[in-house]
Amino acid sequence: MVHTGACIANLLGQGGSRKYHLTWKWLRFFKNDRDRRDLITCGAAAGVAVAFRAPVGGVLFALEEAASWWRSALLWRTFFTTAVVAMVLRSLIQFCKSGKCGLFGQGGLIMFNVNSANPSYNTADLLAIMLIGVLGGILGSLYNYLVDKVLRTYSIINERGPAFKILLVIVVSLLTSCCAYGLPWFAACTPCPTDLDVQCPTIGRSGNYKNFQCAEGHYNGLASLFLNTNDDAIRNLFSSTNKNEFHISALFIFFAAVYFLGVITYGIAIPSGLFIPVILAGASYGRLLGRLLGSFASLDVGLFGLLGAASFLGGTMRMTVSLCVILLELTNDLLMLPLMMLVLLISKTVADSFNKGVYDQIVKMKGLPYMEAHAEPYMRQLVASDVCSGPLISFSGVEKVGNILHALRMTRHNGFPVIDEPPFADAPELCGLVLRSHLLVLLNAKKFTKNRVLTRTEYLRMFHAFDFGKAGSGKGLKVEDLDINEEEMEMYVDLHPITNTSPYTVVETMSLAKAAVLFRELGLRHVCVVPKTPGRPPIVGILTRHDFMPEHVLGLYPDIHPHK
Amino acid sequence: MVHTGACIANLLGQGGSRKYHLTWKWLRFFKNDRDRRDLITCGAAAGVAVAFRAPVGGVLFALEEAASWWRSALLWRTFFTTAVVAMVLRSLIQFCKSGKCGLFGQGGLIMFNVNSANPSYNTADLLAIMLIGVLGGILGSLYNYLVDKVLRTYSIINERGPAFKILLVIVVSLLTSCCAYGLPWFAACTPCPTDLDVQCPTIGRSGNYKNFQCAEGHYNGLASLFLNTNDDAIRNLFSSTNKNEFHISALFIFFAAVYFLGVITYGIAIPSGLFIPVILAGASYGRLLGRLLGSFASLDVGLFGLLGAASFLGGTMRMTVSLCVILLELTNDLLMLPLMMLVLLISKTVADSFNKGVYDQIVKMKGLPYMEAHAEPYMRQLVASDVCSGPLISFSGVEKVGNILHALRMTRHNGFPVIDEPPFADAPELCGLVLRSHLLVLLNAKKFTKNRVLTRTEYLRMFHAFDFGKAGSGKGLKVEDLDINEEEMEMYVDLHPITNTSPYTVVETMSLAKAAVLFRELGLRHVCVVPKTPGRPPIVGILTRHDFMPEHVLGLYPDIHPHK
Repeated sequence: MVHTGACIANLLGQGGSRKYHLTWKWLRFFKNDRDRRDLITCGAAAGVAVAFRAPVGGVLFALEEAASWWRSALLWRTFFTTAVVAMVLRSLIQFCKSGKCGLFGQGGLIMFNVNSANPSYNTADLLAIMLIGVLGGILGSLYNYLVDKVLRTYSIINERGPAFKILLVIVVSLLTSCCAYGLPWFAACTPCPTDLDVQCPTIGRSGNYKNFQCAEGHYNGLASLFLNTNDDAIRNLFSSTNKNEFHISALFIFFAAVYFLGVITYGIAIPSGLFIPVILAGASYGRLLGRLLGSFASLDVGLFGLLGAASFLGGTMRMTVSLCVILLELTNDLLMLPLMMLVLLISKTVADSFNKGVYDQIVKMKGLPYMEAHAEPYMRQLVASDVCSGPLISFSGVEKVGNILHALRMTRHNGFPVIDEPPFADAPELCGLVLRSHLLVLLNAKKFTKNRVLTRTEYLRMFHAFDFGKAGSGKGLKVEDLDINEEEMEMYVDLHPITNTSPYTVVETMSLAKAAVLFRELGLRHVCVVPKTPGRPPIVGILTRHDFMPEHVLGLYPDIHPHK
Repeated sequence: MVHTGACIANLLGQGGSRKYHLTWKWLRFFKNDRDRRDLITCGAAAGVAVAFRAPVGGVLFALEEAASWWRSALLWRTFFTTAVVAMVLRSLIQFCKSGKCGLFGQGGLIMFNVNSANPSYNTADLLAIMLIGVLGGILGSLYNYLVDKVLRTYSIINERGPAFKILLVIVVSLLTSCCAYGLPWFAACTPCPTDLDVQCPTIGRSGNYKNFQCAEGHYNGLASLFLNTNDDAIRNLFSSTNKNEFHISALFIFFAAVYFLGVITYGIAIPSGLFIPVILAGASYGRLLGRLLGSFASLDVGLFGLLGAASFLGGTMRMTVSLCVILLELTNDLLMLPLMMLVLLISKTVADSFNKGVYDQIVKMKGLPYMEAHAEPYMRQLVASDVCSGPLISFSGVEKVGNILHALRMTRHNGFPVIDEPPFADAPELCGLVLRSHLLVLLNAKKFTKNRVLTRTEYLRMFHAFDFGKAGSGKGLKVEDLDINEEEMEMYVDLHPITNTSPYTVVETMSLAKAAVLFRELGLRHVCVVPKTPGRPPIVGILTRHDFMPEHVLGLYPDIHPHK
């Protein structure tokens, strides 16, 4: 759902899809980096808000996990989005109450209503809860480690072609089915409790007490967990009505199977999430621990299940506030909030000492150039000029078309410095920075001059601001699209009107860590590195996101210790 | 409570108080701007968490309203703080349950438990709710306007001396007492409902149905609101048990009185907050509207009270997510969340079209140089060099002590550029920026040389890094503390070791709006403005926070329209 929301938002940000004739004219106002980023954040927030029926949790999830910057405008936008989502969701649930829409609408706005009576706990309970947090953190980080390994393996398999992809899906599906239908055979039967107001055992599609292979009047606890919707399974694990509803063995088998299946399912070519498998595994782990500690702690096993789910979420996702609010909105159990916060704190701290959050791992594995919010320690040992990527290609204020075309073809740089030289300046001076995409638009318009003269802004009249707007991904002009003949190659073009004349600059002796903070906080794409002493060429190099990546920096300076 | 929390945190950030012998050695690690800021944010979060027993709301309040930057580390720290607060609070409430601690602990972790049954609403209800939002927004912005006017009047009175301060407090107290004890005389008596499990009427200290002047078996609704703790009054207004508990006239009188008293009480010399008066006024307004719309809308009057409080909070504070979570934690009513979000959205939008949030107004009125997170539109018409405050005072790399002392005495600048000149450089070049406080420490140590030579780092050995740490406010060295004789005035001191050699710079032609973004996002104190063309002096000026303030910019350029 999160992914879907973000995709729809991205499509809007691209101005709709021209291919499928889904486009509005006013969408072009979003054709810039910032608005597109905001839209995607709102989309992700809406996704979480729908998936967990947690509008406030969605806002916080988007801001804590998805957004790189926190602006008050963004907060307002995501809040507006999820408020609309909440209203629509509320109306649809109202509309679907009569069962017209299948399982949708079950559980109302609160998916796993726990709402226990005021839970009282003593010191022994607190110790048990801390144990949940510690173990949950360890198991959560182990989960991340395993998911990472499995994803790496899968990416090798998936690269071999669609046939292998489908084969992988089939194998995992078969394995899942085997677990779901095979494992309950090993579980013992339990006699139905007598004071129930629901049917027990059930043989049909819905119902919580599955008969499976058991005799009449008995149910199979493991089957009740496996052969149920995930939502109902979680609800069962959180429920406090019957403490002994599930055998310890059934809980253990279910936990192990769900943990294992969760690890191997993520990353195959089907849409699957992380949240629900992790909650399921965490809830069974928590309830299991609750049963094991039954004699020691007095807290309800359903609450143990809830805290177990919290500890697993903390251990894998490593979020704090947003998880707290999402769990609160999922379970409507405000009185458990202090305990939930404690468990999240402990499990996140424990897990952080082993590895990174699962989203960070996936981003890193996919090779996305994501910049950390803080500078790495080793960056303090380097200065900006140490990592500038080599040979600098710069243009004159009025440059020959052939040179520009050559540079665009030879490199994949997205920004080029423009240097004014005599006769346009007394001494070489940095005029500014010009973007690849703007150069392409300019060359495509073919407003060239025979001689090296300033045309300045006069030709800009033929452009509209939207011509320079950001094109959709994979769209936009490419070098290959340009059709420039030999004669035009010898002509000149004035770059001044499309040059950003005040790019952000840093002095070459600035610590790399400080430059990284500037780069990250302002969300830049390029930073010009200027010399310290006058009299030298006006620009030393350009820093791009790539230059801050650990692989690049540590590749250049292999003797630097990455953690010092 | 918020203020108290922030004050304690600030004290810790100053390294304790030497005056009262409250100091630890390890506290000196917090002696820098960033850690102190973070500590204060955590303190504010803890304050909200305690005051409203809303730990997650506290985190969000601190981040949405108090913090200027949002860093994931800060999120983690505030979350940790409030988690500890929640645990301690929970234990204390448990401990005080038996009534040992007076009124503390009443209501448990949830102060105003509403927890209604699933509220169903139709289109007419939605229209009524929107009306609440619109009116709440208008009344909220009017509240801000009146508070602002009253505060301006009070600041004139308060400046006249402590006697006037006390007089003002006495007048307001008398007025409050007159309202509380006088107005109920005008209210009609209501017969006690018959099916109550609490005492009615009560004449003692506690109890919800106050007898006041009424006959036996009757209670005075207005007195029950006035002569009660604020918490109980709010609880009464939110309650849905007896729809007709309060007369429409009683609600109206109470609303008008609370609104009026809230406006005139804030700003007198007693510790008073904004939240509770606003919630009280909002709840009575909402319940009043609910009673008036009784025939039209089917929603419960208690819920109307809750939504009225939300609309008032949205209209005055202008927060969104944090108010939502705080209200959720106050009332434990998750099912009202979509409606609450709707009301907050509407009231904030309506109120924003009139004036700014109450906190912004107070910050502005106190003259605190607070920078908006976004650049003002008119800044796009100016460039960085347009607003640099002149005349620039700069030092040489090795400067005469007398010159430094003169500059420190003559100006109140906090940073001075250091320019290396021949013979230490081939041409004048910008060496960096030196801070006033560091200069004072250096001069105080009196490591001067007779001739103009580089001593570089050798004398730094006699300093410890903590010597340059930030002193508590009002502490630290001052120019007047220095004792430098005539002979020393003629000597030289090498500034290189204490110079920040890579300050953030902007080119003089950079748009002021862009420079403001850099300044704000990185939280800078000084930005060096460097010339565009080489061959000129290496620095044009220094931008400080003051240079970005509207008063300063619009004072320099009176013909610029502030909103264009």
